[in-house]
Amino acid sequence: MRVKDQNFLKKQNQSLVLEYIIQNGPISRAEIAKHMAMSPTSASRIVASLEEEQLIKEVYLETDEVGRKATYYTANEHSVVFVGVEIDVGVVRAGLMNLIGELITARSFQTNTDHYEHVVEFIGQMVNELIREQQIGKDRIAGVCIGLPGLIDNEKGTVEFSAQFNWRNVPLKQLLEQKLDLEVFIDNELKLKALAEYVSASLPYKNVVMLGFGKGVGSALITDGEIYRGTNNMSGEIGHMTLDPYGAYCPCGNFGCLQTYIAIDFLLDEASKTQPMDSMDELAAAYQKKEKWAVNILEKAATYAGLAIKNVVCAYNPDAVFLSGSLIEDYQEIAELIIEKHSNSTWFPESYSYELLVTQMKGMGVVKGAALSVQRKLIKNLDFKGGA
Amino acid sequence: MRVKDQNFLKKQNQSLVLEYIIQNGPISRAEIAKHMAMSPTSASRIVASLEEEQLIKEVYLETDEVGRKATYYTANEHSVVFVGVEIDVGVVRAGLMNLIGELITARSFQTNTDHYEHVVEFIGQMVNELIREQQIGKDRIAGVCIGLPGLIDNEKGTVEFSAQFNWRNVPLKQLLEQKLDLEVFIDNELKLKALAEYVSASLPYKNVVMLGFGKGVGSALITDGEIYRGTNNMSGEIGHMTLDPYGAYCPCGNFGCLQTYIAIDFLLDEASKTQPMDSMDELAAAYQKKEKWAVNILEKAATYAGLAIKNVVCAYNPDAVFLSGSLIEDYQEIAELIIEKHSNSTWFPESYSYELLVTQMKGMGVVKGAALSVQRKLIKNLDFKGGA
Repeated sequence: MRVKDQNFLKKQNQSLVLEYIIQNGPISRAEIAKHMAMSPTSASRIVASLEEEQLIKEVYLETDEVGRKATYYTANEHSVVFVGVEIDVGVVRAGLMNLIGELITARSFQTNTDHYEHVVEFIGQMVNELIREQQIGKDRIAGVCIGLPGLIDNEKGTVEFSAQFNWRNVPLKQLLEQKLDLEVFIDNELKLKALAEYVSASLPYKNVVMLGFGKGVGSALITDGEIYRGTNNMSGEIGHMTLDPYGAYCPCGNFGCLQTYIAIDFLLDEASKTQPMDSMDELAAAYQKKEKWAVNILEKAATYAGLAIKNVVCAYNPDAVFLSGSLIEDYQEIAELIIEKHSNSTWFPESYSYELLVTQMKGMGVVKGAALSVQRKLIKNLDFKGGA
Repeated sequence: MRVKDQNFLKKQNQSLVLEYIIQNGPISRAEIAKHMAMSPTSASRIVASLEEEQLIKEVYLETDEVGRKATYYTANEHSVVFVGVEIDVGVVRAGLMNLIGELITARSFQTNTDHYEHVVEFIGQMVNELIREQQIGKDRIAGVCIGLPGLIDNEKGTVEFSAQFNWRNVPLKQLLEQKLDLEVFIDNELKLKALAEYVSASLPYKNVVMLGFGKGVGSALITDGEIYRGTNNMSGEIGHMTLDPYGAYCPCGNFGCLQTYIAIDFLLDEASKTQPMDSMDELAAAYQKKEKWAVNILEKAATYAGLAIKNVVCAYNPDAVFLSGSLIEDYQEIAELIIEKHSNSTWFPESYSYELLVTQMKGMGVVKGAALSVQRKLIKNLDFKGGA
């Protein structure tokens, strides 16, 4: 235990003021002092130190009809850049974000292999290309964050296990730092997407859960603005919650895991017993044609997806649940079916309430969340002298 | 957003030093300054302010063989008292705790009614009696916390719903404050018990889950030393996670809730189909006599209790899981069966690890957790002048 000293307080206040200017600029020193309950002297000192680091800049705005101008401060959005990357099956997405959280550029690339050495090589090229195109010096890049599905040890920087790519113990952070010569972080994709959703949400939710229904089933919790990680960053692995100890066999070695009722591969396995079936598109098409077998398979899956929503609500008691993943984002009729099935569960007690929403993140949600996670690290860990 | 000022820092440091002295006293000013990375002047000021408030006191210890004495500081354990109360079915337990977290006195009383007005009356008498017996002035009592099962709004101070007592919207905080003329807090009993377990645990766990298997099924999470509450303090209501949408009917209006597989009343209902059965003692006795029907009922219940453990681990990724509740604490052979069944689930990946333990809290766990929660409020919210 260490008592917090002046220096800690100073840094914390620099962070708070920078965050406030990012969100509320252009703003005057007087307004900063007023809204943040600090003395004008402190406000001036902190503002000066942030300006010296070029994280904020002065703008001159007219304050009255005569055209007199006063000095306001706004984030210097070009001062630093954050890189976000998503590794998905068969595709890598990457983007650059400025200080105020806007994607400057973002792009998707098809990959023809999932071998990690090739993917690392490929990300290296991609990120360097984006940086070159935007003519950004490497000294302006605060860091890179990579999001991918699976059990990701964000502290060690290793992919413990990713079923989608069949990666085990891949030291992804280290490999990419060698390739990029930049600081690299890695994290679970759904946790990053949840962070992006939390940041963009129209309301200031306190506890946000993001559910992913796709090739796997997972969840992520943002509580008081922070990702809830658990002990090894493996919280939210609800795809392996057991529903029926004598249910269908799951590759994890147990029976009746939640994902055996919902995940796309399991649905395709079932559909294939009726007719050859390689893609979710085919199954969704059969469902739309109201083919009985497809309706039965998806009705059951939607029932279980609906109860998965209820189950995460029981565990986490959130005020908002966002649905995401291929089943939700690519097949609107399936999303609607899941929401309808979920609405059949009764509530206990009536006050047990939360909003159920579909993700607004679209294709670049993970990229955005990854870049935002680097932005937040920068804001929280400002380490320059001066101020306060 | 408000910038943190000197006063905030001062209070926070007073709290940290008080906590440090409680845990590590007797300790000298020099040691406090050293271990807490603060200047000798700051340490002296904070110590003086805590001493002025009588929260700590001086002791003189010999420091060498010649018998020279030096001044050390230790918590003044008698300076404040915290009251913890548990409302259980047919019994109320209460205890008084001193500043350093020791129960001074604790007692259980049978209640012959669950009507809330009588229970409030009864708690009022009990607490006043304990205070009188210990000859404690009311000015030394920092507050009272009441733990009970159910959905408890700890901010409003109301019992939203408690199935065990069939209470709805009972303003328990208000009723008891009128009766006791002391500040009263209320909370969910399992959350308080988890806090007590976290504080007493032999290892410094980061994420502790407490599971309760008894008349209901519930869980509680302590993360980074704080109770995870969710939005309405209703996190951890895993008894209403749905396992089978066509399972047994639950009074909540859904089918196949986890508690329908495990909770005592459901087990007795099943047993009664074979022979009249009023208590868990009878069912446990039949199980010990290896009566086939009792073995079947409890084997199935233990299988589901085992997967409930796995399911909370999937959600929360804790480093420790403590089992509690009547099925665990009153029937050792059932506890063993649950742990054995749980051990059959395979893990994914191998590194997914946590300790599975049986609660060490015994009968006074909720009382202790309730009193500790008041102690923590006092330490965190010291509000006197001086120091730092």
